[in-house]
Amino acid sequence: MKNTLVLLLFLGLQALSFAQDSIFIRRIYDEALLRGHAYENLRQLCKDIGPRLSGSAQAQMAVDWSYEKMKAYHFDAVSKQAITVPHWERGTTEVAWFRAEKGAIVKVQLLALGGSIGTNGLLEGDIIEFKQLADLQKAKPKDVEDKIVFLNQAMDASQIQTFKAYGACYAIRGNGAVEAAKLGAKAVLIRSLGLPQDAHPHTGSMHYDVGVQKIPAAALSTNSANALSTALQKGKVQFYLEMDCRDFPDADSYNVMAEIKGSKFPDQIITIGGHLDSWDTGEGAHDDGAGVIHCLEALRILQELGYQPTHTIRVVFFMNEENGNHGGQQYAKWVLANGEKQIAALESDRGGFAPRGFGLDGPDTYLQLLNSFAPIFKPYDLHVFEKGYGGVDIGPLKDAYPGIPLFGFVPDSQRYFDYHHAPSDVFEAVNKRELELGAAAIASFVYLLDLRL
Amino acid sequence: MKNTLVLLLFLGLQALSFAQDSIFIRRIYDEALLRGHAYENLRQLCKDIGPRLSGSAQAQMAVDWSYEKMKAYHFDAVSKQAITVPHWERGTTEVAWFRAEKGAIVKVQLLALGGSIGTNGLLEGDIIEFKQLADLQKAKPKDVEDKIVFLNQAMDASQIQTFKAYGACYAIRGNGAVEAAKLGAKAVLIRSLGLPQDAHPHTGSMHYDVGVQKIPAAALSTNSANALSTALQKGKVQFYLEMDCRDFPDADSYNVMAEIKGSKFPDQIITIGGHLDSWDTGEGAHDDGAGVIHCLEALRILQELGYQPTHTIRVVFFMNEENGNHGGQQYAKWVLANGEKQIAALESDRGGFAPRGFGLDGPDTYLQLLNSFAPIFKPYDLHVFEKGYGGVDIGPLKDAYPGIPLFGFVPDSQRYFDYHHAPSDVFEAVNKRELELGAAAIASFVYLLDLRL
Repeated sequence: MKNTLVLLLFLGLQALSFAQDSIFIRRIYDEALLRGHAYENLRQLCKDIGPRLSGSAQAQMAVDWSYEKMKAYHFDAVSKQAITVPHWERGTTEVAWFRAEKGAIVKVQLLALGGSIGTNGLLEGDIIEFKQLADLQKAKPKDVEDKIVFLNQAMDASQIQTFKAYGACYAIRGNGAVEAAKLGAKAVLIRSLGLPQDAHPHTGSMHYDVGVQKIPAAALSTNSANALSTALQKGKVQFYLEMDCRDFPDADSYNVMAEIKGSKFPDQIITIGGHLDSWDTGEGAHDDGAGVIHCLEALRILQELGYQPTHTIRVVFFMNEENGNHGGQQYAKWVLANGEKQIAALESDRGGFAPRGFGLDGPDTYLQLLNSFAPIFKPYDLHVFEKGYGGVDIGPLKDAYPGIPLFGFVPDSQRYFDYHHAPSDVFEAVNKRELELGAAAIASFVYLLDLRL
Repeated sequence: MKNTLVLLLFLGLQALSFAQDSIFIRRIYDEALLRGHAYENLRQLCKDIGPRLSGSAQAQMAVDWSYEKMKAYHFDAVSKQAITVPHWERGTTEVAWFRAEKGAIVKVQLLALGGSIGTNGLLEGDIIEFKQLADLQKAKPKDVEDKIVFLNQAMDASQIQTFKAYGACYAIRGNGAVEAAKLGAKAVLIRSLGLPQDAHPHTGSMHYDVGVQKIPAAALSTNSANALSTALQKGKVQFYLEMDCRDFPDADSYNVMAEIKGSKFPDQIITIGGHLDSWDTGEGAHDDGAGVIHCLEALRILQELGYQPTHTIRVVFFMNEENGNHGGQQYAKWVLANGEKQIAALESDRGGFAPRGFGLDGPDTYLQLLNSFAPIFKPYDLHVFEKGYGGVDIGPLKDAYPGIPLFGFVPDSQRYFDYHHAPSDVFEAVNKRELELGAAAIASFVYLLDLRL
């Protein structure tokens, strides 16, 4: 009898807590959708500032804008964390064309990969095409020497999760220059890591290895890659490339952060964030303007609704995710050195699309917690609550705090690689409601996390 | 012991069937995403033909295009079903502006509602604004008489399911003219049934009642509605409106259809479809070009993969969903009169967005069937398998075949009311992958339905 009463009381309290959470989350969504700041804040970041590659003047503008925005919201502990970042610039010349024997000039849509050296004037060469990075790795030096390697590996459109298709091609961008140079190539061109057939090249990071010749590296739009491949099927093609991109000395920059102090455990911190830097083309709207704005808006909403968190909730705008991750690495070192107790982290870095759910990168013991959120989120169309990836910026917290749960916000991924690192990643590509729903989902998630941890 | 063996055999066969279905559905998705025709077919419908209101020349072009397309795919029983449809035209003059006392002229973005009478020259009048249809219904005739009624009821952006927000405002468009005319108004303007704040008016159907004066009816863009409302807060506003839209005699038109004949029960028919007509603005891309193309592509994929259905699968491009539903009504009558056995129907009429799942409008006994599909669709991010709405075109089958299950394809709804019935509903607003995923989801659903019914 007593046990039954205890059980009934427990179930009753559970139902009450579910109802209270549901009501508060409904208020979060109302604030995001009816009185939201997310869309206007993203507009300012994209239109008043624009692209903001680490070390650029616009990146500094974005730091100042973020700091002032957080101050204006009267968050706690608004601060900048000084870091150093790589500084690479595209320069002013970036042009390419090709010509088949007896053919007309065909201009190519192309972007230097981030970190590439320039061509030091006009570079000319024969093209040798490979359909896979593995084929290049198997090639003989005499076939590659003094040529321009063209890695025409297409993203697999049949992958439902587009990030898997991206992951499978990532190495042509990251390692293409090293692999081509090992065999004596004088430059490397890759097919853009984008899903649509269109005129937008997609840039992104690449690297050089010590002891291997540095060669220029660039990405062709999928249209230009197709045109070049078609021309090569008909015979020899001469390719012309000039780029004056180059590295500069490392620059000073900042992560920008703010908090709502915890009422019960102020020394226990939940970090949420995205990255403030972007590639230098487009406006960094989905990648990752949406992500930082999601997290800023989540904190604003919780404050606006008068929520007093148990733990400290800190939003961090990380700098330099795109070409170094110095912001994420230096943040993890810094919080550990300061003796902070980081108890969980969440990142939004997959665009401002309609929310699908959240992924867990951390011990399985947190899966039950994550799954317990599913019924509360059902009215909001969220359904992904499973193991997954956290984010590049919060990743270093894993080593610093073994066992910490990292969560990644999971929006719909279908349109992400239409825009990723391309000139088309502009404010207009972000839908207002989809952005707002993302901010509301993250605010709700952080609220539940704070209650249950 | 024997029972255990039977159970094990049963579970083994179930697992085998699940594996076989999963493999076939993977092939469906591969065909849609790697070798799909959906995007190019939608381009032709939107760009080579364009908007296609019932009774228009473009509607006839669309009928011919559809018939020839189905013939070219060598489907079975390609045919046109003759029907009659209403014929209304917008005409060539559609202009409006307002002027506050001592104010400048403010031009208004506006579209006549479908079925509205014209103004017979320039119509001028004072404006009286209501925030809800209910407020108009409570108003006194002396306050409304000889004025232009402005129904400024906004869709509720806090609704997660945008169709609910639409449903709650539907009456201002459908009944606004009748309610305003009853009180002596000389015209009615409504705030567009669209969620964004923008310059696109959204048209749609309205009606007149016998015995109530017909008055002109039009929709203002949300921007223009806001501007007008703001001007009215400051004082009197004079409104000017000219529209020469009008009705024409009913026109001849067609539903267009094709089949893959059932191998075992050819007389048992699963109908799948959308509507071929659209409003006369934009290109009817999401509404409902995507829907007919989804279903056409589903049939093409099943045929291409050599699937021989148990039951006959028929795709129907219905005519006249937008302003009369004559196609849907006449189809239901016709199949019943022909003694056909319709066993299920599916409609796609919610746009070409990323799939979420399927809704059931029919007896609860089919819910178990629907739910049994959920695990098979999980890798494809589908998660909605619940009671819902079928579709306007297939709706009349419900009375003709009591107990028939109707299924509605459920894509993400967040962007639908950015485009619905507006000039912005163009081909470019449809994402290729999202469209293809819809076609694959529908083909897979029909495959499972055919196997399990």
